[in-house]
Amino acid sequence: MKVYMDHAAAAPVKKEVLEAMLPYFDRNYGNPSAVYEMGSSIRQDMEEQRGKVASLIGAKPEEIIFTSSGAEANNLGIKGVCLARQKKKNHIIVSAIEHHSVLNSARFLERMGFEATFLKVDEHGLVDPQRLSSAIRPETVLVSIMHANNEIGTIEPVAELSAICREKGILFHTDAVASVGNIPVDVNELGIDLLSFSGPSLGAPKGIGGLYFRDNLRLMPLIHGGIQEKGRRGGTENVPGIIGLGKAAEIARKELPEKMGQVRKLRDTLVAGIRSRIDRVKFTGHPDKRLPGHASLCIEAIEGEGLVFMLSQNGIYANTGSACASKALKTSPVLTAIGTPPDIAQGSLVFTMDRSNKAEEIHYVLDKLSFVVDRLRSFSPVWKKTMVA
Amino acid sequence: MKVYMDHAAAAPVKKEVLEAMLPYFDRNYGNPSAVYEMGSSIRQDMEEQRGKVASLIGAKPEEIIFTSSGAEANNLGIKGVCLARQKKKNHIIVSAIEHHSVLNSARFLERMGFEATFLKVDEHGLVDPQRLSSAIRPETVLVSIMHANNEIGTIEPVAELSAICREKGILFHTDAVASVGNIPVDVNELGIDLLSFSGPSLGAPKGIGGLYFRDNLRLMPLIHGGIQEKGRRGGTENVPGIIGLGKAAEIARKELPEKMGQVRKLRDTLVAGIRSRIDRVKFTGHPDKRLPGHASLCIEAIEGEGLVFMLSQNGIYANTGSACASKALKTSPVLTAIGTPPDIAQGSLVFTMDRSNKAEEIHYVLDKLSFVVDRLRSFSPVWKKTMVA
Repeated sequence: MKVYMDHAAAAPVKKEVLEAMLPYFDRNYGNPSAVYEMGSSIRQDMEEQRGKVASLIGAKPEEIIFTSSGAEANNLGIKGVCLARQKKKNHIIVSAIEHHSVLNSARFLERMGFEATFLKVDEHGLVDPQRLSSAIRPETVLVSIMHANNEIGTIEPVAELSAICREKGILFHTDAVASVGNIPVDVNELGIDLLSFSGPSLGAPKGIGGLYFRDNLRLMPLIHGGIQEKGRRGGTENVPGIIGLGKAAEIARKELPEKMGQVRKLRDTLVAGIRSRIDRVKFTGHPDKRLPGHASLCIEAIEGEGLVFMLSQNGIYANTGSACASKALKTSPVLTAIGTPPDIAQGSLVFTMDRSNKAEEIHYVLDKLSFVVDRLRSFSPVWKKTMVA
Repeated sequence: MKVYMDHAAAAPVKKEVLEAMLPYFDRNYGNPSAVYEMGSSIRQDMEEQRGKVASLIGAKPEEIIFTSSGAEANNLGIKGVCLARQKKKNHIIVSAIEHHSVLNSARFLERMGFEATFLKVDEHGLVDPQRLSSAIRPETVLVSIMHANNEIGTIEPVAELSAICREKGILFHTDAVASVGNIPVDVNELGIDLLSFSGPSLGAPKGIGGLYFRDNLRLMPLIHGGIQEKGRRGGTENVPGIIGLGKAAEIARKELPEKMGQVRKLRDTLVAGIRSRIDRVKFTGHPDKRLPGHASLCIEAIEGEGLVFMLSQNGIYANTGSACASKALKTSPVLTAIGTPPDIAQGSLVFTMDRSNKAEEIHYVLDKLSFVVDRLRSFSPVWKKTMVA
């Protein structure tokens, strides 16, 4: 049996998405900026996708910029807003559990003369509105708080946080890579000014993502170039990727309500099963305010990397810590930020599900996970010490 | 008949390239940073492509960073070098006929406190080594001169220019988007430190490109993120695009010698035919130091946009001015820089050929072009005035 439960890190491109893309590789290959019809008809097809993507998040088509990834969208949104306003304001606030592309954009801005505040979160990973309010200064230009955390599944109170900023005339960006396609996302309900999303988490291919920016918000380009994307992102557009993203957004919009119910049920069965079958497990992130298809936990006295590797040898694909960091760091900064002691954090395990996952897969995962945990613990000196204590 | 001669603006993805990419959309879809085998085998496949791309330009695999486009590579190379050294040196030199992504990166750096020199070129678009030498200052950190110009086909004396810089300890970047795959490109023979290239001009899809950076050159990332691309470019890698780029590079390397001969012959036939059949034509760019499959000219008393449009109605796809600018500007800045008077520059026409073009296509183009030019001139008050004069 092969059970893929690492959808937040990567996902197969949907069949209909790939089919929609194919003609744009070797048949409709013109440059969308060309003056002749082969170019302008491709431009038209591309613009149609902008509408579909906008619909998924309650935006207007002209408020969408296509990028090469969620990471690029985060960089463009954050640096773009700040560098365009540097002469007036120079303080930025982000949460401590943001994606590396957000944290490192903030650190880059520090090098460029900005000050950055990295907001603490509570034990569930939530940003406290009161704490945000206190961190705001007269020179604050932008606040960036993610919609949902990909590692611990927690959904932040973005509407509440953005309201605080709006009242004070501060722009609000949210990294919605983990949420778009998994829960309803509406830029107006959230009250945000900028929002990043990524193609792969919708079933579009790697290499495509996007940024929502409200109205005609001034934005310093990240990739300077010609007039593409209203002058906000240079370089010939990734036409096949854009076509794929549009199709994926269209499907995601239709599927979402049903998908949420399905993956929540799978997740709840998995969590209940782990609770009843495995000792000394700490579930991470918020118990209720979390993504429906997302289970995250730390298994004591085990190394997450070994766990993931042994699970994969049994055909089960899960994650430990953030996908981008998984090769770089031993302890997850997100788990550290929510106060998980390092010896527990190292046993981090993350399952992210899609509607393609089946109920029988959960039982298979539970059996194999119990077996693998027992086996790894039998080798673990830490576990032996724990049992004696 | 359909004759596509706008290969510099966009090109069909090669059959073998698309075939190589397909498994990476819905079968080998894991995240290359994942710790399990489905991820690491994809990482291995990706690294193999890095080797193929490096081979094409005489580089080492670890000197290649994959980007989303040539424009991104230009931005990363130029801003990356400069921002990482801003405290020490703050002057940059680029030629006046660079791609928008280079010119606008230089203008961005001006905003960030740098000084930029835009080097004049001669009537063929050549940068004079003596002029470059005089423009260099003690605080010059980087010189960026393109390898070949996409609009007028001129090949710059990059080896000579880079030698001047190397002697003075100044880094040299070249935008080789128009040259890689069309003429031999070897980073050591050129003596450069950074080089940008793009996938589409090799028959890989839109959405992929790359930057060569010598050895372990310090580079501020453009897209901050995790540890991807040795920490120099964040975001999940565009795996299918990278696989396609590797395959395209492999094919380009094999085909290059034969391709050059083929397209040169086609181009020479086209140019000779235009000379003999159409009056008052000014060929632009250098007569000999130019890309082999590249013909560029200005046809007096005609608007290039109308020309391109009417040609396309006859199934012929050509370009006028730079692809990125074609919708934005009436007169090409490149033609202005080489001293073309505006009334002549507006009749700009660019043909860029591939080995898929056939000899009989040239005759078809010559017939239709003569017809279209006659027709457009018959409507042109400027032409009537010219004939009287």
